[in-house]
Parts: sequence; C-alpha cells; structure tokens
Amino acid sequence: MKDHISKKLTVLGSTGSIGKNTLAVVERFPEHYQVEALAAGTNLNLLCDQIETFKPKCVCVLDERRANELKQRIHHPLEIVYGPDGYQYIAAYPPSDMVVSAIVGAAGLLPTLSAIQAGKDVALANKETLVMAGDIVMHAVEEKKIRLLPVDSEHSAIFQCLEGNRRQELDKILLTASGGPFRSMDQAKFKDIQPEHALKHPTWQMGKKISIDSATLMNKGLEVIEAHFLFDVAESDIQVIVHPQSIVHSMVAFCDSSIIAQLGVPDMKGAIAYALSYPERLPLKQPVPDFFALKSLDFYEPDFKKFPCLALAYDACQKGKTFPAVLNAANEMAVQAFLDGKIGFMDIPSLIEKALANHSPEDAMELSAVLHADQWARDAVSEWLP
Amino acid sequence: MKDHISKKLTVLGSTGSIGKNTLAVVERFPEHYQVEALAAGTNLNLLCDQIETFKPKCVCVLDERRANELKQRIHHPLEIVYGPDGYQYIAAYPPSDMVVSAIVGAAGLLPTLSAIQAGKDVALANKETLVMAGDIVMHAVEEKKIRLLPVDSEHSAIFQCLEGNRRQELDKILLTASGGPFRSMDQAKFKDIQPEHALKHPTWQMGKKISIDSATLMNKGLEVIEAHFLFDVAESDIQVIVHPQSIVHSMVAFCDSSIIAQLGVPDMKGAIAYALSYPERLPLKQPVPDFFALKSLDFYEPDFKKFPCLALAYDACQKGKTFPAVLNAANEMAVQAFLDGKIGFMDIPSLIEKALANHSPEDAMELSAVLHADQWARDAVSEWLP
Repeated sequence: MKDHISKKLTVLGSTGSIGKNTLAVVERFPEHYQVEALAAGTNLNLLCDQIETFKPKCVCVLDERRANELKQRIHHPLEIVYGPDGYQYIAAYPPSDMVVSAIVGAAGLLPTLSAIQAGKDVALANKETLVMAGDIVMHAVEEKKIRLLPVDSEHSAIFQCLEGNRRQELDKILLTASGGPFRSMDQAKFKDIQPEHALKHPTWQMGKKISIDSATLMNKGLEVIEAHFLFDVAESDIQVIVHPQSIVHSMVAFCDSSIIAQLGVPDMKGAIAYALSYPERLPLKQPVPDFFALKSLDFYEPDFKKFPCLALAYDACQKGKTFPAVLNAANEMAVQAFLDGKIGFMDIPSLIEKALANHSPEDAMELSAVLHADQWARDAVSEWLP
Repeated sequence: MKDHISKKLTVLGSTGSIGKNTLAVVERFPEHYQVEALAAGTNLNLLCDQIETFKPKCVCVLDERRANELKQRIHHPLEIVYGPDGYQYIAAYPPSDMVVSAIVGAAGLLPTLSAIQAGKDVALANKETLVMAGDIVMHAVEEKKIRLLPVDSEHSAIFQCLEGNRRQELDKILLTASGGPFRSMDQAKFKDIQPEHALKHPTWQMGKKISIDSATLMNKGLEVIEAHFLFDVAESDIQVIVHPQSIVHSMVAFCDSSIIAQLGVPDMKGAIAYALSYPERLPLKQPVPDFFALKSLDFYEPDFKKFPCLALAYDACQKGKTFPAVLNAANEMAVQAFLDGKIGFMDIPSLIEKALANHSPEDAMELSAVLHADQWARDAVSEWLP
C-alpha cells in the first residue's frame, strides 16, 4: 500500500456485524482510511464509542428521538441526521470517497442507490440491494462509472477469481454454501426447529436475520440472485455447492475448464479488507487455513427438497421482474415472524411460495415498481400470519 | 479469441508426452496456431505423422543418421537439421513467435536459452532448464523482455493465481503434490520397489523419467526449485502439500490471508492451452472436476523421511550456486540406473545425497559453470554405480 493514500469512508450500518468488522479493519490501518461518516440504527452506546474512536464529522441514527439523545451525549461539534432522509443524505456525504453499505435488509436499498448516484465507490454487504433492484443498481453503477465491490465473502471470492481474467471467458460460477446448522438433520425434525437452534451457525458469526437465512439456505438463494446481477451471469450458470467447512469461499470455472477458487478462514474481515483496499491487498496477517489440520475439504449437492427456499430463489431469479423483490420481502417478514415465535421453521418457505404465487409482477426497471412489490409482499405476508 | 491472430510455434520435444498434447491442442484450434518447426529425438514414425499433419517448414532430429533416414521418408521440401546445433538452431527459428520447450531433462537447457536469446516467447515444460540455470534464464528473460509461460500444471496454476494480483503481495506458494504411487506404502517395503511399480502414477499420465521422479517426490523437489526461480520466492515460502486427487493444481497465499487456487482435472492440456493462449483462454471444453462425485479433496503433510529426495531438493535450493544443477544431474543418472535395473529405489536419494556432499560449488551465473557441475555430477554418479 502507498502510505500517502488515505481513503475517506462512510459506513452505513456501523454497529452491525459487518460495520464493526469494517471499523476493526480501519483501526488496524489508520494511515489508509479516514472515517467521515457513520450511520447506525438504535445502538447508541456502541455508536458513541465509535464516534469517540473514529471521530466522524457526520452521523445518522434511526429517528428524531435517538438523534436528540445522541446530541445530549456528544459534547463536540458533530452533524447529526436521522431517518430515511438522513440515511440517504449520509450515503451521499460529499467528503467521502467510498461508502460501506452494511445496513441489513431492504432498508439498505435507497441509501446504497443514493451513494451510487453521488458517484461514490460502494463496498456492498447489503445483498437485498441487488436482489430487489439489481437492474436499477447495475445500470446506475455503469452510468456513474463507480466501483461496486462485494463484501459478502462468496461474492468477494468470485470477484477475486475473476481478476486477471476476461468476463466473456467465465463459464460457470460455483457458489459454495456451508449448508447451515440443519444440513445433516432429518427433514422430519424440521418442524421442531426453534430460533435458538437456527441462530447457531456452524462456521460464521453473523447477525440474526442472516443466521436464519443460512439455516433455510435462503441466504444462498439471495446470493445466487446477487451474483446473477453483479456478474451478469444467468442463474442456470450459477451452481450451489455445499461445503461445510466454509474454507473455499467460491469458485469460477472458465471456458478452458480451468477453475479458480478463493479460500480463507471463515472471517468477514478478509472480504471487507479486500473491498476497502482494492485493487491492492492489505497486510492483514489473519490466520490462513491449515490444510494439514483440516485434512479434507468436503463437497455435497444441495438438497432442494429439504431447503425449498433455495429452489424458490432460483425460480424468482429466473422469472425476473419484481419476483426477487417479493421473494426478499416475504422472506424478511417470515423470518421476523419465526424469530418472534409466531410461525414454525417450515412456514418460512411456505409463506414465500404463497407470496410468489399470488404476485402480479411488474418490470423492475423503475424503483417505484420495486418498492411497490416489496410493500405488497410485506402486507400480504402480514395478513397470512397467525 | 480474436480469429485473425495466428501464433507461429516451434515445438521442441514434439513426440514426447507434452509435445503430443501440445499438438493435440493446436489441432483443435487451427485458426489460432501455425506449426513452423518441430524437434523430436528418435521417434521418426510419429514425427513423420506430425510432419504430414502440421506441415512444419523445419524439423530437427537426434543425429545425422536419423536426419538421413527422415530425408528418405519425406518427399516434399523440408529443412532437416540434427544434433545439439540443430536443436539450438530450430529453437531460434526466425519465423516462430513462441517456442514450446518440452525436451526432457538437461538436454532442454541450451535450446531453451537459444529461444530466449532469439526473443521468442517460451512455453516451458522443461523444468531442468530453471533448476540448472534459473538465474541465467530469468536474467535472459528480463533482458530480452520475453514471456516465460510455465506448462507444468503446478506452475501454470501459480501463474494463474498470481494474475490480477501484485507480486509483492504474495506471501506463500502452496505447491500441491499427488504424493505418487508410494504415498501410503510402508517405508520398509520401499527396497522392493521395481520400475514397473514406480511407473504406475495414480493420477497423471506422463513419461518414464517424470513418473519415477513423481514416485520419489523429486519431481516436487524440482518444482520447488523451478517455482523459486520463476516467481522469485524463497524456498522457505514454498510449502508442499500432498493432495492425492491432483485436482487443486496449486495455490498462492497473499498478504491479506486470502488464498487463490487453481483447480482442474489432471490433464496436461489445460496448462498447455493456457500457455499457448495467454493472456486469453481457449474454449477447451474439457471435463471439469465434479465436486459431487469427488465428495472431498484431501490434504496431507509430505513425509520428508520417506521421501528424502524432497528434502534434498529444498537443501540444494537453499544452498543455491551449482547445487541444484548437481541435484538434477545426479537424479537423472540415478533414475536411469534404476530404470535399467542397476540400482534399487532407495539408492536414488543416496546417490544424489552423495553427489551433493562431494560437490565443490561454483556461482551459477555462468553457463560454463552450470554445465561443468552437470557433467561432474554425471561422471561422479557413473563411477559410483555398481
């Protein structure tokens, strides 16, 4: 790294799992990064700590009440904004070069678009942005000539595998999946799965929503759709491979039958650091996989019957239009209902399937159509909940 | 591939394993390649077939007798040369853009240097060239600004993993080894190993010399030295990993703890095609590894005690100077003696060790010193043979 280059960052979702890991990377390389702005939700205690450590010039919180509370706690000049307008404002915050988009769920879409429209490079951890509005986002990326760098470990892997190769030589994406905590469980027992079981992921430390998505394999389904848009590959050329150790983060097969893979320990910092430092690599000096201790890397076919969410995602991707947005919204609602103890584990795919079956699709080239489909799915699933 | 580009090739060692595979690739893409010259040894029947198929303008054979025999058999104008001068002449043959250097053993060194000096890009399958004279060769490559493209599947893998990355970010090379046919055999039984056992390689189809080298792990040792020179990496940063399935062809670990790996079925055509078409990839449409059928990829620590040749190679690489040339020459002599039934399997490392112990090293920046060390080792081992 050239020592004199310092990237100016805005971190959206700074108190979440990706946000914290992003700031942990930044803290290790203070000469390379400067935090200009932070957006959190409701975790003011952590946000206050982050403000003290990274000294941003602007922060955003969920609502006016939290903004006022924050004003009481901070005793130096700091621009404080809040709510949807606040998130969009801070995403486009002029001093920043790059926005780390790590707000969870559909809420990440508008701020991410705002960052792209403002010409910022975006490190994208929010997969809903591409799932809901992939065409709109990729069109904006091209128009604004910004870099959209994936932070998901799988998409970072694919991105790294494509470096130094020609896009037209890509034959197939091999997207690895840990298989989640219920990979080896008998399907008959799925009805008894409680949130606390689903939250225990075998290899990755993640937030609640994404942990449930990993347990249903919807996370992998959303990643298929994300990869479809990000790398402009048909979903039929994206193959999911279950790989329980999560060491191979994904692979790309080229037209000459050569496969390039990216491997690493299951730790988000690798993908985050790559997005922050691209096209260079930071001397992270993390642990590397110990092949002698691992002894073997295992691969299995995904079970689409046990995990219907994965099949639903492929189906929504293939149908296109506003189907992926409906898939995503219905999933968010269903996962929350499961976490709240209102529905069972296998009700998640059932509700999503029902939403997709009842949806009247529209073209997804207009944001209004996407947001409308998103809202329609949320309302529909709400009605169907017990 | 751009259809109008046609590369003009000289193939040194056209009747050997790599040579035949090279021509098989060329035959599939006649619009991309034109064979200008072929060099073989003694297999005139195959050479005649190749002449008919590829219509080279110049060919080289081992000696005057074979040159005369060939003249009798070819009834159209064809420049026929022979012997050491012939190989050097054809390696520098003016019409060619690229030389595939696939002569086995130390005999490949001078023609390869001749090709580099003539400003040809070189696809290098002859690892002895770099083992014997790595400093000289890499210096010439730099001076002549030619491309030296590895054809060994491991080095092609490393080369592919480095594409799109910065050399200074390379942390470690993870060189995979099949482990050869005696990986799981009790060391006590090694004394009974006969050439026919050693020639049965579990995953790769190769020539005799390299098959024995694979059985002793000297092949991997030579590859460590080759990688050391080709990628300018200390041998202590090259780690051999035994991987019996030969699917992962090698890996590179970078400073951010990200590992990039190249995978493929064990078939030389992949690496050959990559060298021929670099920086593009040919639509080879070979089989790709089937991860669901493979189920797992296994990794083991190499056993330096069971396979002392590997330790000897590391040692020679670390000592530098003319030690690698001696290692290589002593190995060639010992392997031939083993194939001839004169010595046992475990006499191979003993003879090499003795040669290294008795060698008075010189700097390896002069070709004369290298050739002198090579000859000294051959004479010494000859004397020690029963």
